[in-house]
Amino acid sequence: MTSTFSSLRINSDRMLDSFTQASSFGATSEGGVNRPSFSEAHLQARKWFREQIESAGFEFRTDGAGNHSAVIASETKQSPTLIIGSHLDSVPNGGKYDGGLGVVAAFEVLKILQENRIKLKVNVEAMDFTDEEGTLVGLLGSAAIAGHLHQKDLDNPRGGRENLLEGMKCAGLSDESMLSAKRKPETLAGYLELHIEQGKRLEKSKINIGIVSAIVGIASYRLTFIGKANHAGTTTMEDRLDASLGASSFTLKARELVMSEYKNSVVNVGKMEFSPGAFNIVPAQVDLSLEFRSATQDEFDKLDEALISLAKAEAQKFDLELTIEFLGKHSPSPMSDKVQTAFASACDDLGLTHTSLTSGAGHDAQSLADLCPVGMIFIPSINGISHSPKEFTEWEDCVNGANVLLQTVLKLAT
Amino acid sequence: MTSTFSSLRINSDRMLDSFTQASSFGATSEGGVNRPSFSEAHLQARKWFREQIESAGFEFRTDGAGNHSAVIASETKQSPTLIIGSHLDSVPNGGKYDGGLGVVAAFEVLKILQENRIKLKVNVEAMDFTDEEGTLVGLLGSAAIAGHLHQKDLDNPRGGRENLLEGMKCAGLSDESMLSAKRKPETLAGYLELHIEQGKRLEKSKINIGIVSAIVGIASYRLTFIGKANHAGTTTMEDRLDASLGASSFTLKARELVMSEYKNSVVNVGKMEFSPGAFNIVPAQVDLSLEFRSATQDEFDKLDEALISLAKAEAQKFDLELTIEFLGKHSPSPMSDKVQTAFASACDDLGLTHTSLTSGAGHDAQSLADLCPVGMIFIPSINGISHSPKEFTEWEDCVNGANVLLQTVLKLAT
Repeated sequence: MTSTFSSLRINSDRMLDSFTQASSFGATSEGGVNRPSFSEAHLQARKWFREQIESAGFEFRTDGAGNHSAVIASETKQSPTLIIGSHLDSVPNGGKYDGGLGVVAAFEVLKILQENRIKLKVNVEAMDFTDEEGTLVGLLGSAAIAGHLHQKDLDNPRGGRENLLEGMKCAGLSDESMLSAKRKPETLAGYLELHIEQGKRLEKSKINIGIVSAIVGIASYRLTFIGKANHAGTTTMEDRLDASLGASSFTLKARELVMSEYKNSVVNVGKMEFSPGAFNIVPAQVDLSLEFRSATQDEFDKLDEALISLAKAEAQKFDLELTIEFLGKHSPSPMSDKVQTAFASACDDLGLTHTSLTSGAGHDAQSLADLCPVGMIFIPSINGISHSPKEFTEWEDCVNGANVLLQTVLKLAT
Repeated sequence: MTSTFSSLRINSDRMLDSFTQASSFGATSEGGVNRPSFSEAHLQARKWFREQIESAGFEFRTDGAGNHSAVIASETKQSPTLIIGSHLDSVPNGGKYDGGLGVVAAFEVLKILQENRIKLKVNVEAMDFTDEEGTLVGLLGSAAIAGHLHQKDLDNPRGGRENLLEGMKCAGLSDESMLSAKRKPETLAGYLELHIEQGKRLEKSKINIGIVSAIVGIASYRLTFIGKANHAGTTTMEDRLDASLGASSFTLKARELVMSEYKNSVVNVGKMEFSPGAFNIVPAQVDLSLEFRSATQDEFDKLDEALISLAKAEAQKFDLELTIEFLGKHSPSPMSDKVQTAFASACDDLGLTHTSLTSGAGHDAQSLADLCPVGMIFIPSINGISHSPKEFTEWEDCVNGANVLLQTVLKLAT
């Protein structure tokens, strides 16, 4: 059976036409899209996807979280469902590949399955997830399906409650509908997603496909180094309690620590705020925004402890006080071995080079990772540019990715 | 003659009464004063000083810059004038000793000269200088007397042109009057000031009097380290151009440099501003506020060069761009050797311990340093607290300082 299907390829011209249409919603003069969740442009893109699904003769499915999908049902009743997809929302002034390409490719895969009347042992569903980027909540549609969404997440969303209420209203959704979108794990056969890498590793190594081994865990803290404000002319260097020293030393040493001992992690000090912040006053306080990410739980936990210890040591070194505010974390999400093997086999069948890599960014797959086998493939991002209108991927790589997705679906669904 | 005068002392009770009255204008609940230049409280304090001068029978003198003084004329006509004094304006929510004490002590010295009918070879003038603290311009009255004030300084003052115009109007002054206040160097015999230290050196070493050897030079720059904004999850540590690294490393190394090689200097990084400043974005730009001060011209020039070289080296080390914006400087002002010797002799006569130290803060004496012999003495500041309602000096130290001022005036004016 595999030998029959292994010659199937997606229709590049049709997928390009579809991608071009999708990219027209919220298109910016710089070549990107501005399509935050439930903005007018996003609502138009959602409407377009629904029309595409219905005009192509697929069953259209929606749920209380506003996730939209095209479904091909298995002939076997009560079959679980293999979801493939991505998201049509973007960050403000973002690029057109992040999310949009994955939805279009999933939909193209469904068209190939339909045209070739492939007998499926599972239902296959090409999905556009709600608010992956987090204009409102983040990974909203997938968290709702996974049952990870709770009222408290809706009460205090990062985008603001008012904006969430307004957005849900525009899409005909509500708190109640959101919390009703949960799907039972036994109804899910898996989840696959094609995405651009958002990094340079594939481009630098000239490899066609990245098979994601894990989506990193992410944690954030606000560290506050506290010294004492003093006259910057009359206070001797020895007498100062300068908060900038602890913050600066921590920033440099955190980077050294991660680069030398935590190869599967990254750390970022995205901001320091100085108080009182005058040329002629020794800084009394520096608030430092710390974020770190690790691909494995073990490294994530160890790095967490190491960074907090480092902050304490640096504060002490400069006679500063330190306050530590934990802001939140997601644990690392390993991808399914079975799905990774299927992706690799599909690449080999297609003559495409591939490598294993981690995803430094969050994706809907992490919401579903503890419910069913999930997997992602990445294709090269030119210069690694992401969340920018300058985001770009060669069309040939998009086609390669879509073919790997198609062949992997065939392996897993037939 | 010296033996006659050496037994003279200021009247401690009378000076305390005067200081208490002066401290009532703009008094805050925390024990300080809030008396920015030409504020209602400052205008009241100025009016009080004028009334004190006139009711004590002194000649009242004012000039186009709003400087107010009590004068005792020498019997010798065409004599030059020895000015003693300080300022009645304060920083917002400041302390009562900074400036106010120096004015009250200078006025008390004049009373002693008057009561004892001391024959003077020079005129002696106890002065309250306009806007020393820089709510509007900074060292305004002394710069006007020195002829260092120019229309451009009035056109673009640090306190804002509108506020300066409003303040001058309240005090009956104008641009024209300000620029007319210049006094010829040959009319000036010198300038002496008593001030609190605003640092801990005297308190720590338990020495009564600090004789200022120089007022430090001060320079400021805005250094901008420029990298590239990138996704803090998907960009490897190696691929980042993180502006925080150059800024942090510069901050630490600038301190080390000054502490090891520039003993007569201090350096301050009072602020860093991060762009774009998000947890999950590698910082593209850090704007760093740099200020440094040196007591000698040679060290000032060398440190200037060394810090700029250091900034360039640190930027290069982390592959960052650097822009350097020079914001301004004042050169170091050495105090008169003759005046320092007279201060030391007065301390010895009074049985007070003394040491030579530099002033890390700016004072009106620096405006006059290239016109006539100038000198300052410092008295201990408890905990070195300055520009704060918590500023405090023991009254005994205030009296000691006033007596040194008196004895030095007697040495220089008789």
